[in-house]
Amino acid sequence: MTSIPAQKPCPDLSYPALPAPSLQQALLAAADRRQAACQTLLAEMVRRPSLLGNEQSAQDLMEQTFRAMGLEIDRFPIDLDLIRDHPAFSPPALDVDTTGLQGRDNVVGIHQPRQQTGRSLILNGHIDVVPTGPADQWTSPPFEPVIHDGRLYGRGAGDMKAGIAAALSALAALRDIGLQPAAPVYVQSVVEEECTGNGALACLQRGYRADAAVIPEPFNHTLMLAQLGVMWFRLTLTGTPAHVLDTTSGRNAITAATVLVNHLKTLEAEWNAPGCCHRHAAFADHPHPAQFNVGRISGGEWPSSVPTTCDIDMRIGFFPGQTLDSVRAAVRQTIDTACATDPALAGVAVELTFHGFQAEGYAIDREEPVLRLLADSHTAVFGNAPREVAMTCTTDGRFFSLYGDTPATCYGPEASRIHGIDESVSLDSLRDVTRVLALFIAGWCGVEPIIP
Amino acid sequence: MTSIPAQKPCPDLSYPALPAPSLQQALLAAADRRQAACQTLLAEMVRRPSLLGNEQSAQDLMEQTFRAMGLEIDRFPIDLDLIRDHPAFSPPALDVDTTGLQGRDNVVGIHQPRQQTGRSLILNGHIDVVPTGPADQWTSPPFEPVIHDGRLYGRGAGDMKAGIAAALSALAALRDIGLQPAAPVYVQSVVEEECTGNGALACLQRGYRADAAVIPEPFNHTLMLAQLGVMWFRLTLTGTPAHVLDTTSGRNAITAATVLVNHLKTLEAEWNAPGCCHRHAAFADHPHPAQFNVGRISGGEWPSSVPTTCDIDMRIGFFPGQTLDSVRAAVRQTIDTACATDPALAGVAVELTFHGFQAEGYAIDREEPVLRLLADSHTAVFGNAPREVAMTCTTDGRFFSLYGDTPATCYGPEASRIHGIDESVSLDSLRDVTRVLALFIAGWCGVEPIIP
Repeated sequence: MTSIPAQKPCPDLSYPALPAPSLQQALLAAADRRQAACQTLLAEMVRRPSLLGNEQSAQDLMEQTFRAMGLEIDRFPIDLDLIRDHPAFSPPALDVDTTGLQGRDNVVGIHQPRQQTGRSLILNGHIDVVPTGPADQWTSPPFEPVIHDGRLYGRGAGDMKAGIAAALSALAALRDIGLQPAAPVYVQSVVEEECTGNGALACLQRGYRADAAVIPEPFNHTLMLAQLGVMWFRLTLTGTPAHVLDTTSGRNAITAATVLVNHLKTLEAEWNAPGCCHRHAAFADHPHPAQFNVGRISGGEWPSSVPTTCDIDMRIGFFPGQTLDSVRAAVRQTIDTACATDPALAGVAVELTFHGFQAEGYAIDREEPVLRLLADSHTAVFGNAPREVAMTCTTDGRFFSLYGDTPATCYGPEASRIHGIDESVSLDSLRDVTRVLALFIAGWCGVEPIIP
Repeated sequence: MTSIPAQKPCPDLSYPALPAPSLQQALLAAADRRQAACQTLLAEMVRRPSLLGNEQSAQDLMEQTFRAMGLEIDRFPIDLDLIRDHPAFSPPALDVDTTGLQGRDNVVGIHQPRQQTGRSLILNGHIDVVPTGPADQWTSPPFEPVIHDGRLYGRGAGDMKAGIAAALSALAALRDIGLQPAAPVYVQSVVEEECTGNGALACLQRGYRADAAVIPEPFNHTLMLAQLGVMWFRLTLTGTPAHVLDTTSGRNAITAATVLVNHLKTLEAEWNAPGCCHRHAAFADHPHPAQFNVGRISGGEWPSSVPTTCDIDMRIGFFPGQTLDSVRAAVRQTIDTACATDPALAGVAVELTFHGFQAEGYAIDREEPVLRLLADSHTAVFGNAPREVAMTCTTDGRFFSLYGDTPATCYGPEASRIHGIDESVSLDSLRDVTRVLALFIAGWCGVEPIIP
């Protein structure tokens, strides 16, 4: 195991500032010169289909890229036994061979300054991507990147390989003009952000901390001030099978599942009501922040038999401040009450399994130095302040903020149709994120000359 | 190919009568002596798991049994090309390897009398069984027959291997007392009754006709006067995929599927309304004859993605007199109207595929000689007339009645949980059906002595 240096306190806690205008100009120009290489890297990342359980090929590319940039490599497998007892641990998603989940790697590239004069930084991105959906609905195959009308298309192009490529290009831009960060920088390429977050949690468990963490998620140049909690669970309904000649003698598990989902939708409506006690201030203006999604369903096997069983996978969102235990209790209570009172569920057994995301929401103060400097960097590039957002999804940022004493936010490119068909990222946006992060890194970490 | 004898007209069209009382007594006693062998045969039939596409092992047993009874064998594969253009043809069920459906056999055992003095008869049964559902919910494994409390348990025990075993035992009982039918008898063990009926259709195409057909379906000693039409179809919905962070930007195909099913349920309610113009007189008193069943559903792949596609397999029932074209048009119209008017279906594409059962309903006059003699046979065994029923499912009887000029009905044992978990058949009932059919065959076909 690569030894991780003890965290040094930041020697100067004054308000972090952008680098001098001349350095800014040099950095922006260097960031722009990096764009061809950045696009090439991004395309190669997309070509490696890092679906759940299949991340190693993409991580090989990350290790090779980190090494070529002079970063020290810390590549380590996710050891579930080391993180299982952490309060932020999420049980692996069902239908996944958990033995296969052992032995998949995180890759961290470590930069150590000769002398630390600035703040340390974690640049974190997830290498895993979600399933493609029906591949034949894509205009071009999802893992064969194509550029069209200024956008790069492919599964993971936006979420979030572009962000990782931009962060690496920003660091490279510094090197291109003979500079390096004057503080430790940990570039983390982690697995399993899309279902549990256990990749980022393993980094935390391994000891990684910094003065801030930035995750270049594809949030369209906004500054993330808060994110919802997210929970996955499976409902397995068992009805009463029968010949369809008298469907009333059986209890259709598929029909029962849709009835039960409607009961859970009332919980969703309750949480989204403007006056709901759980509604966090950061989400005060969002019309419908807490999304309950039926993401997968499977039931029955024969058109002329009343189906015995039906499985549903749901994803629900909830507010910062709602504990995992209270959310699980509310779900359980809703189901119990529905089964006890709705005649349409009489005789139906419901099994509730929490798996995958058990992710708390969190918020971060807009006055945190990391947010201030990111805002200043954005303004330097765009000429106006970035929009601040409260996200209705989760990110790995929760681990750093809630459990790692490391203020974390997201700032990344404009992407479209993430998790959908024909996902893409804007190449102009990729360049702009590279520019913003180059300024931010120089300002946050400070710089020192590279001495060959 | 075994040549099929030209059908001889029945020489005596007078009202068929039960055999003389002394022969009745001898036959009933012989039927009872056959019960141990009948149960052994039934158990061996259950042991051969004749699921769709896997019927050959059970058909081997049928051929061997027919041959041991002195029947001539006509074993022939279902050739879809020979029946594809028949109006009663049903396209093979989806998710089935149709090349595998070629080459599966029907087995017919043929008895020819020395001299025909009675009516010819088709005894038809289907060897195929429906899927087991979750095997771990069965008290004992579905293809390992067990006898408990006077019932034999196993998938297919009731639907309808018991009926076939009883019919064979009734024929054997005649032989046991030195007699044989004085008319042609065709014992048909057919495939694919549970999804298309193409097995029985292939028998029809091959030329089999008779003065009547009896199918010992497990209808609890009732006389079937009518049966519903049955149709299968698949709905494939395509919504708009999206990241779940804003579900409103996508269109959830699973949710849309449940909405569309509710629209189809209004068609079901319409057809079941007491005053509905389609309601056939035979079903006048049934509270809810036309069952619409969602038998299988599959959609989505990831809890945090709005699912792009969802498939639903439905089975619907409709009345004798409703043509297949009119039913398909009503389904299509309901879907089109729903998609055009329901905002919950905006942006959702629906593909409608008719496959599996495209089965018309039919009714038979209670004065048909086959029904009269079956009723008399039942009365002779039970001491009271059988109940007459209109069935809310389909059987292969439709082929004979509608397309084969062969009046057909069903008469068979009491079974429970057919198509469900822990399917079973009553052994007392198995014996009683053997008794009734022995009397019926002797009365319908007449008898002649076996000359060795």
